[in-house]
Amino acid sequence: MSSVKRIIPLLDRVLIQRIKAESKTATGILIPEKAVEKLNEGVVVSVGPGNVTKEGKTIPTGLSEGDRVLLPSYGGSPIKLDSLKDKEYLLYRAEEILAKLQ
Amino acid sequence: MSSVKRIIPLLDRVLIQRIKAESKTATGILIPEKAVEKLNEGVVVSVGPGNVTKEGKTIPTGLSEGDRVLLPSYGGSPIKLDSLKDKEYLLYRAEEILAKLQ
Amino acid sequence: MSSVKRIIPLLDRVLIQRIKAESKTATGILIPEKAVEKLNEGVVVSVGPGNVTKEGKTIPTGLSEGDRVLLPSYGGSPIKLDSLKDKEYLLYRAEEILAKLQ
Amino acid sequence: MSSVKRIIPLLDRVLIQRIKAESKTATGILIPEKAVEKLNEGVVVSVGPGNVTKEGKTIPTGLSEGDRVLLPSYGGSPIKLDSLKDKEYLLYRAEEILAKLQ
Amino acid sequence: MSSVKRIIPLLDRVLIQRIKAESKTATGILIPEKAVEKLNEGVVVSVGPGNVTKEGKTIPTGLSEGDRVLLPSYGGSPIKLDSLKDKEYLLYRAEEILAKLQ
Amino acid sequence: MSSVKRIIPLLDRVLIQRIKAESKTATGILIPEKAVEKLNEGVVVSVGPGNVTKEGKTIPTGLSEGDRVLLPSYGGSPIKLDSLKDKEYLLYRAEEILAKLQ
Amino acid sequence: MSSVKRIIPLLDRVLIQRIKAESKTATGILIPEKAVEKLNEGVVVSVGPGNVTKEGKTIPTGLSEGDRVLLPSYGGSPIKLDSLKDKEYLLYRAEEILAKLQ
Repeated sequence: MSSVKRIIPLLDRVLIQRIKAESKTATGILIPEKAVEKLNEGVVVSVGPGNVTKEGKTIPTGLSEGDRVLLPSYGGSPIKLDSLKDKEYLLYRAEEILAKLQ
Repeated sequence: MSSVKRIIPLLDRVLIQRIKAESKTATGILIPEKAVEKLNEGVVVSVGPGNVTKEGKTIPTGLSEGDRVLLPSYGGSPIKLDSLKDKEYLLYRAEEILAKLQ
Repeated sequence: MSSVKRIIPLLDRVLIQRIKAESKTATGILIPEKAVEKLNEGVVVSVGPGNVTKEGKTIPTGLSEGDRVLLPSYGGSPIKLDSLKDKEYLLYRAEEILAKLQ
Repeated sequence: MSSVKRIIPLLDRVLIQRIKAESKTATGILIPEKAVEKLNEGVVVSVGPGNVTKEGKTIPTGLSEGDRVLLPSYGGSPIKLDSLKDKEYLLYRAEEILAKLQ
Repeated sequence: MSSVKRIIPLLDRVLIQRIKAESKTATGILIPEKAVEKLNEGVVVSVGPGNVTKEGKTIPTGLSEGDRVLLPSYGGSPIKLDSLKDKEYLLYRAEEILAKLQ
Repeated sequence: MSSVKRIIPLLDRVLIQRIKAESKTATGILIPEKAVEKLNEGVVVSVGPGNVTKEGKTIPTGLSEGDRVLLPSYGGSPIKLDSLKDKEYLLYRAEEILAKLQ
Repeated sequence: MSSVKRIIPLLDRVLIQRIKAESKTATGILIPEKAVEKLNEGVVVSVGPGNVTKEGKTIPTGLSEGDRVLLPSYGGSPIKLDSLKDKEYLLYRAEEILAKLQ
């Protein structure tokens, strides 16, 4: 099982893999790093069960694995795990996610 | 489908396209950039379903696609997507929108 | 229809036109600009429907078009619309308005 | 009608006239301005109807016109109206008032 | 009636007279002012009726006139009234008082 | 009655005596003061009755006299009473206490 | 009984032992200290009973002894007890824990 699949978000948290901008043009020319803007787009990797009310009811997050989403410019907890160094993963509270992308 | 139509705002968020000030006068003379004041006006592009209460009831935002609106001077999440570079889009919580314009 | 009449405040917001201090004395002598103190007085131009409770009930703001009001020293969103440049309009939440003037 | 009587506080606000310290001793000797300490005492000039609950019930402020009160050291909105320049008036939320003076 | 008795605290406020440290030793030797530490002890002089709930119920403060109490290091509104200059009085919200002293 | 026993904490406050680190080694050698780390451990000396709900119900704190507890690094009101100078006492809200020690 | 087992977290707190990064490579070569990144991973050592509602109901934390968890980058109360100096223990509120690790 891949290492990132081991992460089970708690409460209303969602695990997001940020989508990296292409560092080459379509014709294969390398773009200098500074010109590669940080994109605010990500993919939902896994979803917590949702917050629990005082009556014990769980409120689902409304997001699903595989959803492409828009991320806010600030916030999110970056995940530092040994095996994840080549990809960028973050945990957000579901209500911080701005929008889904169809 | 145009790229911006792919963005489905979550909860009570609304996607707004800011209206740019004209950079030419009516007779076609170019206005230097600094003289073009940033307008606080926008058009609603899409609307989230609304916040969900703990009882599971969805509260609609009261805004509709196509509404012309007044934006607050601060706030809003600017959307950075590759295909949107020529227009300025922002996501707001519906209650941040100041007014509708008839 | 005048441009300011196009602005329909949302929720509990009220649109206020600030009352400018006279820049001439009664006998027509010009007062230097610095001596014209900014007044905290305004007129209600239009009123939002009021906030909506989670039960769907609208709470009216208690203010009406034409009310003369006292404004707080801070706060309010100044409205920048092309056609409004000669007058000063602001949007406030109704509960920020300090007092009515008879 | 005196100008200050025109001010009708909104919600739970109360209009207070601050009591100025005497700038003469009992025997008529002038006290230099710095020695006249700012007093925290005031008189209630008018009282708002009180806050309104979501059920539409108005909660009276518990203060009445003419009450002598102790004011907090900070807070309050000073009223700047042309005709009020010789006296010091402030608007407070009722719950900011510290005490009544018998 | 003594001047401090005129002060009727509002809501859940309590009027406290701070207890001053002795500036003489038991044998009458004067202690230099810097060595007299500010004590955090006081006596309750008068007590407000308590906060009022939205249902109109008054919640008593649990403190009584004459109680010796421990004061927090910060907070409290010092009372500046002409006739109170020789003693130190402060108003606290009842829940700020740390403890009673038997 | 010892002076500290006179202190009756209010609401959900608990009176804690901080446990001082030993300033000697087991074999009696003095440890220089800087090497004596401030311990986060304390003993509950007395316990307030607990907070009171708006319905008049008292919620006990869950702590008892004699409990050994872990203290947070920040917070707590140090008690300065003449007779307590050789020991370190603090008042905390019960929910600030991190853990009990068996 | 080991010293850390003596710590009984209160309310919704959980006691976490942070997992230290290896300071040697698999082949036994020492990694200089600066290259050993602080990992955000820990093991749940013990779990408080959970918060108590005003109705007296206890809400369990959803975490169990032995769970491997992801920790937030900030927050947590480090535990300084004499006998714990070789390991790093922290107390968190359960809702601060980001995710479980399978």
